[in-house]
Amino acid sequence: MDIIGGVSRFQSNVFPDQKELFRKLAQDGQRPRTLMISCADSRVVPELITQSAPGELFVCRNAGNIVPPFAMKNGGVSSAVEYAVVALAVSDIVVCGHSDCGAMKAFFAPEALETMPNVKSWLAHSEPAFEVVKSCCGHLPQDQQVEALVLENVSIQLLHLQNHPSVAARMAQGKLSLHGWFFDIESGEVRAVGPDGVFHAVSGDRPLPVAVPASRRIMRSAEAA
Amino acid sequence: MDIIGGVSRFQSNVFPDQKELFRKLAQDGQRPRTLMISCADSRVVPELITQSAPGELFVCRNAGNIVPPFAMKNGGVSSAVEYAVVALAVSDIVVCGHSDCGAMKAFFAPEALETMPNVKSWLAHSEPAFEVVKSCCGHLPQDQQVEALVLENVSIQLLHLQNHPSVAARMAQGKLSLHGWFFDIESGEVRAVGPDGVFHAVSGDRPLPVAVPASRRIMRSAEAA
Amino acid sequence: MDIIGGVSRFQSNVFPDQKELFRKLAQDGQRPRTLMISCADSRVVPELITQSAPGELFVCRNAGNIVPPFAMKNGGVSSAVEYAVVALAVSDIVVCGHSDCGAMKAFFAPEALETMPNVKSWLAHSEPAFEVVKSCCGHLPQDQQVEALVLENVSIQLLHLQNHPSVAARMAQGKLSLHGWFFDIESGEVRAVGPDGVFHAVSGDRPLPVAVPASRRIMRSAEAA
Amino acid sequence: MDIIGGVSRFQSNVFPDQKELFRKLAQDGQRPRTLMISCADSRVVPELITQSAPGELFVCRNAGNIVPPFAMKNGGVSSAVEYAVVALAVSDIVVCGHSDCGAMKAFFAPEALETMPNVKSWLAHSEPAFEVVKSCCGHLPQDQQVEALVLENVSIQLLHLQNHPSVAARMAQGKLSLHGWFFDIESGEVRAVGPDGVFHAVSGDRPLPVAVPASRRIMRSAEAA
Amino acid sequence: MDIIGGVSRFQSNVFPDQKELFRKLAQDGQRPRTLMISCADSRVVPELITQSAPGELFVCRNAGNIVPPFAMKNGGVSSAVEYAVVALAVSDIVVCGHSDCGAMKAFFAPEALETMPNVKSWLAHSEPAFEVVKSCCGHLPQDQQVEALVLENVSIQLLHLQNHPSVAARMAQGKLSLHGWFFDIESGEVRAVGPDGVFHAVSGDRPLPVAVPASRRIMRSAEAA
Amino acid sequence: MDIIGGVSRFQSNVFPDQKELFRKLAQDGQRPRTLMISCADSRVVPELITQSAPGELFVCRNAGNIVPPFAMKNGGVSSAVEYAVVALAVSDIVVCGHSDCGAMKAFFAPEALETMPNVKSWLAHSEPAFEVVKSCCGHLPQDQQVEALVLENVSIQLLHLQNHPSVAARMAQGKLSLHGWFFDIESGEVRAVGPDGVFHAVSGDRPLPVAVPASRRIMRSAEAA
Ligand SMILES: [Zn+2]
Ligand SMILES: [Zn+2]
Ligand SMILES: [Zn+2]
Ligand SMILES: [Zn+2]
Ligand SMILES: [Zn+2]
Ligand SMILES: [Zn+2]
Repeated sequence: MDIIGGVSRFQSNVFPDQKELFRKLAQDGQRPRTLMISCADSRVVPELITQSAPGELFVCRNAGNIVPPFAMKNGGVSSAVEYAVVALAVSDIVVCGHSDCGAMKAFFAPEALETMPNVKSWLAHSEPAFEVVKSCCGHLPQDQQVEALVLENVSIQLLHLQNHPSVAARMAQGKLSLHGWFFDIESGEVRAVGPDGVFHAVSGDRPLPVAVPASRRIMRSAEAA
Repeated sequence: MDIIGGVSRFQSNVFPDQKELFRKLAQDGQRPRTLMISCADSRVVPELITQSAPGELFVCRNAGNIVPPFAMKNGGVSSAVEYAVVALAVSDIVVCGHSDCGAMKAFFAPEALETMPNVKSWLAHSEPAFEVVKSCCGHLPQDQQVEALVLENVSIQLLHLQNHPSVAARMAQGKLSLHGWFFDIESGEVRAVGPDGVFHAVSGDRPLPVAVPASRRIMRSAEAA
Repeated sequence: MDIIGGVSRFQSNVFPDQKELFRKLAQDGQRPRTLMISCADSRVVPELITQSAPGELFVCRNAGNIVPPFAMKNGGVSSAVEYAVVALAVSDIVVCGHSDCGAMKAFFAPEALETMPNVKSWLAHSEPAFEVVKSCCGHLPQDQQVEALVLENVSIQLLHLQNHPSVAARMAQGKLSLHGWFFDIESGEVRAVGPDGVFHAVSGDRPLPVAVPASRRIMRSAEAA
Repeated sequence: MDIIGGVSRFQSNVFPDQKELFRKLAQDGQRPRTLMISCADSRVVPELITQSAPGELFVCRNAGNIVPPFAMKNGGVSSAVEYAVVALAVSDIVVCGHSDCGAMKAFFAPEALETMPNVKSWLAHSEPAFEVVKSCCGHLPQDQQVEALVLENVSIQLLHLQNHPSVAARMAQGKLSLHGWFFDIESGEVRAVGPDGVFHAVSGDRPLPVAVPASRRIMRSAEAA
Repeated sequence: MDIIGGVSRFQSNVFPDQKELFRKLAQDGQRPRTLMISCADSRVVPELITQSAPGELFVCRNAGNIVPPFAMKNGGVSSAVEYAVVALAVSDIVVCGHSDCGAMKAFFAPEALETMPNVKSWLAHSEPAFEVVKSCCGHLPQDQQVEALVLENVSIQLLHLQNHPSVAARMAQGKLSLHGWFFDIESGEVRAVGPDGVFHAVSGDRPLPVAVPASRRIMRSAEAA
Repeated sequence: MDIIGGVSRFQSNVFPDQKELFRKLAQDGQRPRTLMISCADSRVVPELITQSAPGELFVCRNAGNIVPPFAMKNGGVSSAVEYAVVALAVSDIVVCGHSDCGAMKAFFAPEALETMPNVKSWLAHSEPAFEVVKSCCGHLPQDQQVEALVLENVSIQLLHLQNHPSVAARMAQGKLSLHGWFFDIESGEVRAVGPDGVFHAVSGDRPLPVAVPASRRIMRSAEAA
């Protein structure tokens, strides 16, 4: 493993310039404003895409940027969400999918999953997305179906986020917003979904679309309004 | 969320220089050699510490760099491990703990966990580490206990990795090694554990200690030897 | 148990008039158009409120009209949903809460749950609703908080419905709509929630508000639009 | 959905006559004496069959009138049972199966279950009944096997009821009895099982057979007798 | 560990006399007729109490001689039951409780369970027995309550056995009987429960009481009888 | 069941000679020093092989001498381990596999598992052992593969033991050692594995090999050493 060379380079070439930052982070603790949930894919580096410095991004990564619903106790993703919301009080959660995602492509080659039973079970959390694509886009070429699945998958994970009690409460207080992103590896483009379910390319010229803005889920009777 | 500025900077300043790399990664797919399992902590950026380029590091991050044992079906970490080993055939898995870890410190302030039930359940996977520290280091100052816990926690997660069938098989074939690391935020130092359970600072001058080298777990009867 | 008198009355006084209907239902099988998920409360009788004849309403009842998210395998509610959508192809699902709900009131008297461990676990599926109410309506009198909780609970169960693959697919095909109702025991009033999260009294003069109309969850990129 | 017409009819034609009853139920709360666990089937309306008024019957309905054993935490049926026994102190629990049950028929057409994974898992709670029928009635015509399965299924769910701690305790105190029923859609007949395992048609002329009478499960040594 | 002396004694003093038996068992495989489920307690040795030779008794032992209901997938006891019934076709299953059982006594000293979370969860399978004792024998001295609990616990585990599909099927075929025993450590007495729930001392002079004889659980309608 | 004869023989011929021992054990309680986890196989009698008297061996037996990892709450084996370590403070745990094990052989005839779903799930805890054998010994004759699997299975269960918090803590305190054994039915030989993974025949002339001696799992940084 030549990773040892990388660590050496980090220590001699990179760390010295960031010494002060790391010292401060060690002493004051972390205060990230954003939780990013992205894929474990080696080509999708959250800190690179968002140009975040150490200390800025709380990051949970797994195969398929999946968020199981809250009821699944003992889960690593739900724990990261809970920690980010309750202990760190982040103001934004981004679920970031990406092009050519191996986890999403596995739905179209299910035989490969026979040797990966855990991955197969894990992908059950994306199944509603796949069922939507299968029943609505079955006529499209497969690469378009894969992209549709990646987008739908971001959508369903945003749904799952909202059934986490800590998330629901913070959103209702107007202190937390949810974002759904798509990263295109080849073009470097980032698209963000709005409340209407359409993904728009993110650009410095326009405000960032927000999937589910803070303060949205209060239901009430008309007479109480 | 001013993250939109970061994305813009990435697109105008950074991506153009890496365009060719991303194009190649989009077309050829990813071929990382290493899976890194690290904490979601914003101060621990795997690609930075190892100076890895996009495409080099498959990354799973969660609160406490935990690997639940295989039997827990439906898990995100086990799925990432399985995907890395079976689909990507990585040659190395690194479990990377770090100083000042909020997840590990939660063991010493359990009342804070009352509002984070998922985190509490999740940390059960680190409980053997905490029990060891409690019974052996109870007399030490708390910061030393925390550091001991971070190290023990890396150890127990390496144990959990070995009960994953895909990991056990690849190790027995001599094709996969396991590493346990500790990243010190303040000094930027990386320490790696050897088979003897001692963590040594990683340095370009010495070979990297390996926690569990490939080809280790074959048991046999003396007469068959 | 004097219920035997009721059965006798049914057989001598009621059944003879509906004999033909029951014969037809026995021979042709059931073809209900609606699944109603309501509370087990003895005061909330779905067929009475909707004046439905035998054969018209597929009914799932449990304490608190709860729908656990899909990922909880082995569940009775998810099975009823799946059977209604896949095998019976219902066009509408109604989640019906009600005033003075004992399950919802249990959140405000948690000590009573100590002797009902299963109920306590079950109510975890309503916890996001309670957290929203606690953080936003904590200043209101308790009866108003209870009513807010009943409404929020309907909302969160509608969210859970949408993570069922069969539901997501049928909705995306434009063949299934979701409804959220509130039944007021004292006044007999039924209120239905619209997409804006406001509950309006149902009246024969106005169209029925629909919580999540069919064909809503397709996400797409702007360029594909 | 023309259900809105039904609600209007309920409000204008039915509710006014029951206004006093509903007012009383709203103010005094519910005090049902019986929990009925029946199928979600639209043709089996518990309140109709037993001619129960609002407030008389606590009702849990799911596909196949199934009661998972107590150990399955988080379950809707077990919660309804627990609430009925502990909070409402009902004196009788009826498990009511019925003819032409789609859930039971699914055992004879298992391929249909491939698209209903949750139903498939759910029916595992009826598997002992199916195994009994398969091994003892395999030679009978299928409709007789289906009826035998419905009866056996009622039996196994009565068994499951008895492993609920709250049920076991109340029965041992002589305050709770268990009933097993079969409703025949075509004839409107209700049959009830006795301790001998035989189902007899319920009739106003005879006492109601009781499957497991209160005060039955106390074991003791002969010398202590 | 001086157990090595015991192994040596076995090899030099005991094995030579049973050499032929072991050779036959190694070549023909095992054909036990009975599955015994007993406590892990060191004072309760099934082969000693029943004077069984190697090859005669298939033995499952755990704390409290517990049989979780079938629905708990992945369980060691259910697997032993299934293997004994399906693969070995045993004709009898004995659940054997005993006096002074530490697992049962833990119900009366629950604070000790705080350091044994797994034991605590495990004992949930005996909770119906404890609830029965608590509500019916609360006035008795504690040692009598403990004995009552041991007996009730045997009873509830016999109930659990019957919800295993393989057990239910074999019993309905008349090929499998269930037994409930109590072993008194001090007197060496064995008591067996009959269908009436009374435990009688086992004696060579009387037939062995059978808790649930083969061929018992077939339900049927009177007209089909 | 002629087991009644055995009980009679125990009471008339055997118990009288051990009366004093049993009286003492009843009054003082049990104080076993060793937990043995072995297979339910009728040919493997732990007390016989180790020549242990009543009171000396705490015994957990299940199909395949399996120890699920700690995280699987509600488990019988983990409970026995926890009880032995915490309540009884045993100093040694032996995992004992054996030749011709039906559970291990099932891996080579998986179609037989179709009728034993619980056994199939249970054996998932041995899957890493099977994957190792499959990938490393696939070229050997099947009986050698079976024996390799039995040995590897002992190894993986020793791994699982170490993730139990109570075990990890006691080992780190130097008060608990782990042993892995193999019992050969035909020859009566017992082999024990050492830290190097080789099984040696146990003999009174040599010290007993110990798989994982007490006080082994403390990790530390070099500077702290
Ligand atoms: Zn991906
Ligand atoms: Zn951390
Ligand atoms: Zn209610
Ligand atoms: Zn039915
Ligand atoms: Zn015991
Ligand atoms: Zn075996």
